[in-house]
Amino acid sequence: MQPVAVIGIGQTRIDEHWEVSLRDLAVEAVLAALHDAGWESADALYVGNMLSPLVSSQNHLGALVADWAGLKNIEAAKIEAACGSGAAAFRAGLMAVASGEATSALAVGVEKMTDKAGRDVTAALATAADADYEVEQGVSFVGLNALIMRRYMHEYGWKPADFAAFSINAHANAIHNPFARLRQKITLDDYGKAPMVATPINLLDASPVGDGAAAALIVPVDAAPRDGRPLVTVTGSAAATDTIAIHSRRQPLFLEAAHTSARQAYAQAGVGPEDIDLFELHDAFSIMTALSLEACGFAERGQGPRLGLDGAITPRGRLPVCTRGGLKARGHPVGATGMYQIVEVVQQLRGECGPTQVAEARIGLAQNIGGSGASIITHILKRD
Amino acid sequence: MQPVAVIGIGQTRIDEHWEVSLRDLAVEAVLAALHDAGWESADALYVGNMLSPLVSSQNHLGALVADWAGLKNIEAAKIEAACGSGAAAFRAGLMAVASGEATSALAVGVEKMTDKAGRDVTAALATAADADYEVEQGVSFVGLNALIMRRYMHEYGWKPADFAAFSINAHANAIHNPFARLRQKITLDDYGKAPMVATPINLLDASPVGDGAAAALIVPVDAAPRDGRPLVTVTGSAAATDTIAIHSRRQPLFLEAAHTSARQAYAQAGVGPEDIDLFELHDAFSIMTALSLEACGFAERGQGPRLGLDGAITPRGRLPVCTRGGLKARGHPVGATGMYQIVEVVQQLRGECGPTQVAEARIGLAQNIGGSGASIITHILKRD
Repeated sequence: MQPVAVIGIGQTRIDEHWEVSLRDLAVEAVLAALHDAGWESADALYVGNMLSPLVSSQNHLGALVADWAGLKNIEAAKIEAACGSGAAAFRAGLMAVASGEATSALAVGVEKMTDKAGRDVTAALATAADADYEVEQGVSFVGLNALIMRRYMHEYGWKPADFAAFSINAHANAIHNPFARLRQKITLDDYGKAPMVATPINLLDASPVGDGAAAALIVPVDAAPRDGRPLVTVTGSAAATDTIAIHSRRQPLFLEAAHTSARQAYAQAGVGPEDIDLFELHDAFSIMTALSLEACGFAERGQGPRLGLDGAITPRGRLPVCTRGGLKARGHPVGATGMYQIVEVVQQLRGECGPTQVAEARIGLAQNIGGSGASIITHILKRD
Repeated sequence: MQPVAVIGIGQTRIDEHWEVSLRDLAVEAVLAALHDAGWESADALYVGNMLSPLVSSQNHLGALVADWAGLKNIEAAKIEAACGSGAAAFRAGLMAVASGEATSALAVGVEKMTDKAGRDVTAALATAADADYEVEQGVSFVGLNALIMRRYMHEYGWKPADFAAFSINAHANAIHNPFARLRQKITLDDYGKAPMVATPINLLDASPVGDGAAAALIVPVDAAPRDGRPLVTVTGSAAATDTIAIHSRRQPLFLEAAHTSARQAYAQAGVGPEDIDLFELHDAFSIMTALSLEACGFAERGQGPRLGLDGAITPRGRLPVCTRGGLKARGHPVGATGMYQIVEVVQQLRGECGPTQVAEARIGLAQNIGGSGASIITHILKRD
């Protein structure tokens, strides 16, 4: 891979932004990323988004965001891979720069979810699954994840409370992230009392929706300014797919596409799981944390929850995850999430994370999942 | 640009495919492209599509199509740039290969439009425009084009009938294209009697919707088989944007993004308008044919219709356009159209076009437009 660097990052707070439109959120993050780098524009813009046609009656976000950000006449397109859209947009920007078709590229993930009623958003999110063979049967997206979690518990003998540590860690970290949606501590007792959403997934297993945008500016390493700040480069980038429907998978409890894309990214970067200093993973539901840890080589199959129970995942542990709150507490504006992960890894590698800073973080992993594991994009970033 | 070749193409007939689903259309085109090349699979798949969330309640087409085409675990994503989605997907595939991130990439454009009632499709198409500042005023997509055509006629003194030659040529060519939707001849008299859609755009100025898919397989030139067939390479590829809303443009009658992307593609390919043997342009409405010819350097501003009136655009003329029927008569399944254009240019460069074959075609231009000119992607292909 032609080496590229991330020289600017920007993000909005995740919230119910009633007074801010979809385009304004994206523009705020894009301009923040340019400002962070001290750049004026870029050759290309890739917008990661999933729901704008359904929630905002708006397609064509590439041109829209480029226009409203004042980036006249640049190349722009939208990239969609369900909840993996953010990282897919980042990877598109990386390929534009690595191919020499662009000398710089912005990637922005943006989602506006709270303009519609809850049941409309639930229906919109279900478009990530197989419309004809899953959704047609009446199963929602949380329902699909509940089926996976139930089977996992049955297969490996875990209780719901064994997953609580994932959510407790995410919330503890979000308190220190000014961009996070849920900046409040939760306890094991809270988890035990949380109302059920789709058994066995309770409210504290599930990430909240939200409105937000996050962006990054990508350039060839040679073009990165040497301004005294740590230089953050992308040393691994890979994407893989699995069957769209869970029922088609031979191993529904193994994230094949996470495994494949992580293996490719490790190989590109010349590192292994033991070299990773922090992991921004896709904890849309706590079961996904367990499966991600297993697929990426941090736990044996069926043993993901152990890393929560033994404290490995906290900022002082041996594999910090969700250091800025993760999807669970930072929030999950679906098409934006992958870009929040990239931005957060850059913040860690720069040493900008205050109380949840991982000591001497040098190599960070970010993994974004679309659907119930059908599209998974893995990135490895490194501080030079 | 790292040189790439198109070694396989595939397409479905454009029609009202009541009995075929969105995924089946895409799979048919993808497998046809692989079969045409004699390949089994590819590293990556980019799906160009605009309307699937709105018409088919389905997002996540990258993983869906990869899965159903049997392309297990490959990278996949959807690319959207309104009606420019097809060429944007092709360009994504090109960048994946040119960056070395993929050793081969499939691009497929697919759209299923006829499952919904006409007014729902009209509303869905309007998501290509500015939802908050154009559509909110009640203007449809054809209405926006009608405003442009009316102003153009006022400014340059043309009558509606002066645009008829564009549609007559498109229909005459479609008769010989087995994949075209409207394989019937039309006359100047038919044009004069055509019912009005949005004055001054009549039914024969407007391209029909349809269901269809078209695909291509892209590899590095070095990897292209030398099997005796003409080798088709991509020598120019560029994309540019303009304001999302027409009212924001200083020159609403000039396609700035077409001009910019064509200029960049010409420069990459080392050619000029005088070297182009055929031009698959984006005749969604006949006014767009005139504006495309002007923006790409084939006519002075305001003089596009002259190329129709003097016969330059027919297969035997000096600049054949819409040689397989164009959007007007081949049909315009919006997110698929850009890939139909690429496939048709390849067919011309291979000499596979029968009665509408352009003699000794060596360099072909394809240009795909999203929205009312906000996203425009230009490709130049060459027979070695």
